[in-house]
Amino acid sequence: MDMKPPNELTASEIVAAVSAGRTTREAVMRACLDRVAAREPQVQAWTILDPERALAAARAADRESRGGPLAGVPFGVKDIIDTEDYPTEWGTPIHRGRRPNRDAACVALTRRAGGMLLGKTVTTEFANLHPGPTRNPRDPARTPGGSSSGSAAAVADHMVPVALGTQTTGSTIRPASFCGVFGYRPTYGEHRLNGVMEASGSLDTLGILARALDDVALWRDVLLGIAPAPIAEPVRAPRIGIYRPSPAWDEVEPATRTLVENAARDLAKAGADVSDVMLPAEFAGLNAAHRWISSFEFARNFTWEIAHHWNEISETLRTGRLADGLSCSFERYVEMKELAASCRSAFDALWQGFDIMLTAAAYGEAPVGGGTFASAPLYMMSTVLHVPSMSLPVFTGPKGMPIGLQILARRHDDRALFGWGRWTYRVLTS
Amino acid sequence: MDMKPPNELTASEIVAAVSAGRTTREAVMRACLDRVAAREPQVQAWTILDPERALAAARAADRESRGGPLAGVPFGVKDIIDTEDYPTEWGTPIHRGRRPNRDAACVALTRRAGGMLLGKTVTTEFANLHPGPTRNPRDPARTPGGSSSGSAAAVADHMVPVALGTQTTGSTIRPASFCGVFGYRPTYGEHRLNGVMEASGSLDTLGILARALDDVALWRDVLLGIAPAPIAEPVRAPRIGIYRPSPAWDEVEPATRTLVENAARDLAKAGADVSDVMLPAEFAGLNAAHRWISSFEFARNFTWEIAHHWNEISETLRTGRLADGLSCSFERYVEMKELAASCRSAFDALWQGFDIMLTAAAYGEAPVGGGTFASAPLYMMSTVLHVPSMSLPVFTGPKGMPIGLQILARRHDDRALFGWGRWTYRVLTS
Repeated sequence: MDMKPPNELTASEIVAAVSAGRTTREAVMRACLDRVAAREPQVQAWTILDPERALAAARAADRESRGGPLAGVPFGVKDIIDTEDYPTEWGTPIHRGRRPNRDAACVALTRRAGGMLLGKTVTTEFANLHPGPTRNPRDPARTPGGSSSGSAAAVADHMVPVALGTQTTGSTIRPASFCGVFGYRPTYGEHRLNGVMEASGSLDTLGILARALDDVALWRDVLLGIAPAPIAEPVRAPRIGIYRPSPAWDEVEPATRTLVENAARDLAKAGADVSDVMLPAEFAGLNAAHRWISSFEFARNFTWEIAHHWNEISETLRTGRLADGLSCSFERYVEMKELAASCRSAFDALWQGFDIMLTAAAYGEAPVGGGTFASAPLYMMSTVLHVPSMSLPVFTGPKGMPIGLQILARRHDDRALFGWGRWTYRVLTS
Repeated sequence: MDMKPPNELTASEIVAAVSAGRTTREAVMRACLDRVAAREPQVQAWTILDPERALAAARAADRESRGGPLAGVPFGVKDIIDTEDYPTEWGTPIHRGRRPNRDAACVALTRRAGGMLLGKTVTTEFANLHPGPTRNPRDPARTPGGSSSGSAAAVADHMVPVALGTQTTGSTIRPASFCGVFGYRPTYGEHRLNGVMEASGSLDTLGILARALDDVALWRDVLLGIAPAPIAEPVRAPRIGIYRPSPAWDEVEPATRTLVENAARDLAKAGADVSDVMLPAEFAGLNAAHRWISSFEFARNFTWEIAHHWNEISETLRTGRLADGLSCSFERYVEMKELAASCRSAFDALWQGFDIMLTAAAYGEAPVGGGTFASAPLYMMSTVLHVPSMSLPVFTGPKGMPIGLQILARRHDDRALFGWGRWTYRVLTS
């Protein structure tokens, strides 16, 4: 028997326990639902869930001994992702009760693999900055980060082993850092987004929140619709580039900078070849590129809401991304897209000397209050450059709250990212 | 007064007539609806429309003298694009009655500009090959082409001046060629797809069907959410590359090849600098790249339908794109994406000597029967390479049916494409 309560098992542990007959899908789901019942009044990670429906589905899967690489694994889904059995409301009162008739591709792929939907998790408004009610489970006075707020909080609080998020700026990496879980943003374009709200199509990806790196790798393959492969064990220590982008790095809190620099030193001691990443001068424009690409696209995607529900849109969004997007010329938008494409090409060449790059996953610990807090410049590289990234939960800040180490790999090298990520995680947590 | 019946006016002519008070939005809409009533039993371009709703909306806009660059212009929308007032059924019985609660970004942008939705147009099943009921208005024994079948047929038959389509392979260019209207496939990534069914996210774009080049340019800007700019008059004749890709060119019917080659000769006589495009050897792989990228992505996007409604999916789709997609390895998919990216870079360099490239828009005239008929290799260059393309309705084939001349420009050079397109169209139709 596993010693941990079922709701504290990782997805891989659940699959093993269910497949070996050591527990049932129903027992796992019940443990997760009990945890939700106990903690949800404080954490507020969920927009909607139906315990009876979730238990009935688990019992049916038990009866049929339904297999699959995620057999019996309860999962949460960010509420900008369509599900056939629950409303999908995009974090806005404008779409209260919005009811798709089918599962998004990512949800259907997860269910086909044996995953059991527990419910929908809180997103910020339209996956932008204006926060929902979710609190940081480690300290309810603090933000969980966003926009995948509920997914990160639910995973961190042992309500589900894994949850789906998305990322357009830092919407997976940031809440993973603030809540102390693994967050993974895949190579742009690899996963399908049919049934997922488009925020900014040139930048949007899915995101995975989990408490184990193996679970990230497992679910990533399921979401690609391919046979899961275990994380390959690296045969040598990695060549690591430290990424201290100016001016974003200057905004990183001194304590966080020290944590990252100490980690680099420990990784070097463990055999890694560690050196600084020298970025071409044009990379200084990536922050602006992200701002104008994302806002130009976002403002057009929500034309219907702007036309019919302007007063139900938050002040934060109206004066932030929408104001940016409505003021941005098409010429600037194209110029920024061409800059981003040029940097992507230049970045490809930079990987000659590196296996992974590392930096902070946020400026510091989750701040007090409900805001989602941007730390945006730290996400520029992975988001605009379309490379995969992860937040590894390896640091504790001065207030005792988690901070993530962000690692990046080259495009389509997501499996290598997992391998080097595990090596890095082991060194820093052993 | 305009001499033409209102339903035969172009969008630009409608805007001018409405703005000058020479007609009303209601009169234009009524003329279009009358045409639909007379012709729809034969053409079958529409999935759903509500004449009373359309007329009421037109009257309301008349009362408010609602302006905008598309003031009073009736438009059709392919039924994979969400509309708040009609179901959106994706061309499949699986989604009969599917009812979104909002307009897709492209529909909301068009309405904001004064456009008046007439109804939803027939799409092939999931915008793939299996045809709907639409017939070619020039000859009901023949296919209109697809997948934007109803949009092309409705525009060709003077039911609406303009209609929205999409393109993942040749879904706008092909029906435009078969029906004898302008078809435009924009630079990949410029237009937002929020509310549009994702078929293959790495390739999908909107498409515009129209009877006038000015209307294409006008609507393109509206769909970008920017102030429309008139087509700039070229100050010189273009440098034209003739694109005869092997082996696709060998499939082009001899009569069509002759039409294209005669057109090239006429354009040269009019002052164009015409020469052959020499493609790098790796371009021979683009056909396979399109096949595997599109099918890998398509098969994942419709996981829910595959899991729950396999028997309601056509044999064509199950044994075609879905079989391909489910058999394609992730490694092959990534390899094909990398080939496509490499060809895009190589293609950028090829434009040094050319303003536009031209080729056929289809192998020949619309065939007899209901099939959508691929001519797929001719679309590879624009679709996989992400460049803008148009079908110009300039040819008549041996059976008296239209054939389009396909022209391409470099990425983000859509406005230049319109300018060179007009020059080309004038030379070939004067």
